[in-house]
Amino acid sequence: MADGFEICEGELWVSGSEVVYVGNAGVQESLLWDREIDVQGNLLMPGFKNAHTHSAMTFLRSYADDMPLFEWLNQQVFPMEAKLTPEHIYHLSKLAIMEYLTSGITANFDMYLTPDTMVQASVDCGFRTVICGAVNDFSQSVEEMEGWYQKYNGIHELIGCRLGFHAEYTTSREILEGIAALAEKYQAPVYTHLAETEGEVKQCLERNRMTPVEYLDSLGMFKHGGGGFHCVYMTERDMEILKRRGMYVVTNPASNLKLASGIAPIRDMSAKGIPIAIGTDGPASNNCLDMFREMFLVTALAKYREKDASVVDANEVLSMATVGGAKAMGLNDCDTLEPGKKADVILIDLHQPNMQPLNNITKNVVYSGCRQNVKLTMVNGKILYEDGKFSIGTEPEEIYEKANAICNFFKN
Amino acid sequence: MADGFEICEGELWVSGSEVVYVGNAGVQESLLWDREIDVQGNLLMPGFKNAHTHSAMTFLRSYADDMPLFEWLNQQVFPMEAKLTPEHIYHLSKLAIMEYLTSGITANFDMYLTPDTMVQASVDCGFRTVICGAVNDFSQSVEEMEGWYQKYNGIHELIGCRLGFHAEYTTSREILEGIAALAEKYQAPVYTHLAETEGEVKQCLERNRMTPVEYLDSLGMFKHGGGGFHCVYMTERDMEILKRRGMYVVTNPASNLKLASGIAPIRDMSAKGIPIAIGTDGPASNNCLDMFREMFLVTALAKYREKDASVVDANEVLSMATVGGAKAMGLNDCDTLEPGKKADVILIDLHQPNMQPLNNITKNVVYSGCRQNVKLTMVNGKILYEDGKFSIGTEPEEIYEKANAICNFFKN
Repeated sequence: MADGFEICEGELWVSGSEVVYVGNAGVQESLLWDREIDVQGNLLMPGFKNAHTHSAMTFLRSYADDMPLFEWLNQQVFPMEAKLTPEHIYHLSKLAIMEYLTSGITANFDMYLTPDTMVQASVDCGFRTVICGAVNDFSQSVEEMEGWYQKYNGIHELIGCRLGFHAEYTTSREILEGIAALAEKYQAPVYTHLAETEGEVKQCLERNRMTPVEYLDSLGMFKHGGGGFHCVYMTERDMEILKRRGMYVVTNPASNLKLASGIAPIRDMSAKGIPIAIGTDGPASNNCLDMFREMFLVTALAKYREKDASVVDANEVLSMATVGGAKAMGLNDCDTLEPGKKADVILIDLHQPNMQPLNNITKNVVYSGCRQNVKLTMVNGKILYEDGKFSIGTEPEEIYEKANAICNFFKN
Repeated sequence: MADGFEICEGELWVSGSEVVYVGNAGVQESLLWDREIDVQGNLLMPGFKNAHTHSAMTFLRSYADDMPLFEWLNQQVFPMEAKLTPEHIYHLSKLAIMEYLTSGITANFDMYLTPDTMVQASVDCGFRTVICGAVNDFSQSVEEMEGWYQKYNGIHELIGCRLGFHAEYTTSREILEGIAALAEKYQAPVYTHLAETEGEVKQCLERNRMTPVEYLDSLGMFKHGGGGFHCVYMTERDMEILKRRGMYVVTNPASNLKLASGIAPIRDMSAKGIPIAIGTDGPASNNCLDMFREMFLVTALAKYREKDASVVDANEVLSMATVGGAKAMGLNDCDTLEPGKKADVILIDLHQPNMQPLNNITKNVVYSGCRQNVKLTMVNGKILYEDGKFSIGTEPEEIYEKANAICNFFKN
């Protein structure tokens, strides 16, 4: 399946970490393979890319719900996070990786406190992670981020790192200028939470007489592109800046609804030519890490918001969840299934009632698909999840036990 | 688990079609059972009730999307439906029943063209169905509905029937008066699509100088209660009428979003004491039949609509999807798990990454649950679905073949 979702019948061959052939069956019958899988008419497609998440926040799932964003952050999230150790974050990240695999997600763009632990969890599981800097006034420094940027780009084929900071409202001008200088030094894109709530935009206007997008752009932050997470409250001018800077928008519809933040103007941003990717946000706000739910929300909420049931169709959404996500994270060889691309592949079970009849497979996946349809998830040529079983070097029950032990430790 | 979601450790015993014991383990060890299941710490709970659906519309899944409601009905749905035979509807209903089972749905409140075929499909599969009349100017008559009402109440322990009509905007005053007379004759509740779109309410105001709720109530339609499907556009007065008449609201959030109809005022209706149930609507508009997606939408959309992340919490939503649905459909012995209640039971797999850690199981189910977590679905004491396998008297592949053949027949 290439960009544009051409669905063809035939075979897909993987060698090492790469796709080496996509096409008609029976071309080279004499080749010997370690394993041959009869997919029984099911759908092979590129894995989903979770382009914004905070994986280790699994420990806060179903812990603090039903609260507005700022209250939730200040009263529940930040105090609990202050108690986390790197070892906690390692195990909690593994729990998230398991959930990604069940949802056909083959890479995450992760923003959290200690990148080292997320990197270790991903490498140990065989999962693909791009670390996003999360610098702000309370944790991480520009210097630390530069260290990670140098260390993690090139360290391992599964790992990458991008410059990033938490948000305009948590980061002083001095630090922001430091990050903009780094962006210039490395000619690198920068990513951040951007215009997630109405209050955040209002406060920025009061402080700086500019919207968050205008203000950050005025500091030279986006000279080499990058991306905004959420982007719920966008002015025309904001969208023009994002477009001009070649920036990505990563939308997080479930989190934005559940925290009562709002609905992002996906149709308008897309119409302006701003490329869009999809993220789950962290499990504390969502509360699950499921690309199927996000895909349905992207299209259904756009239809509701614009009072037009024809906008943002299934093809567009599936492209955001695969190609859009890969490009937003800089994973340019993980976007489609073609020879030379990384073998980040999933197998979707069409022999399930929610996938029948086969009027339109793309629409079935976007409008009706769910985790139950993920039969197999392959990352970098290795099968990490198949028919409900994980091959990630640790037993699931061990990870569940660790996660529950961490939660019990916090409660006492 | 009783009303209010008390979760206890212990055993649940089923004999014939009923729950006969819920409580501590080891009470009567000498009893002999056909089968004993170790649920391994997973969650037994009452099955979900799909309180509004059009099951046989599975044939239109992913066929006509991305269109507004009226255009979609007139250009796509009605012309295709005109070609359907009762045999088609039988097979298409079975496909829907399979999907219900995968989502832990143990009963449906079904409104469609030919009730006989839905009834046959349910009885053949062992599924529980309450038929809802769908009288309108184009199909079904008041006399036919009275025949079904007499025939299907008492015919089989899995089947029931309620009076109903399609909608105010598709049904003449004369027919509506006939239905109101039937309601009076049988002292029976009446159900209908109600205030689904803004246009529908406006047109009714122009025709009758009353909202649909006011107009129908003025005809005596709801003298013995009943329910409204959708109820997206509600005035204060509408809500007072629903409350006074003891009516149920059945909300269908995914369909309302996807057709750009709107978001129902769940918080306000609930605050007024109107009992609420949840439906998937038909697979042509949704496009899947999944109570987990609906539950998340009910709470997340209420939070967004009221700009308050604290409204309509997980307990309330889980109650709507189980107890609320059962009561709306008149299934008063299918609401909770207690001795003497029908054994409509599901087993939720908590040993999955999206259900961990176990900070709060109710929240895990509502905010993070998905079909993948449904390990077993029992209807009326019989296991119809377990670990991905169906026991409904027909092979899944046979039903898929029938559904695809019907679609191909229509396309030619």
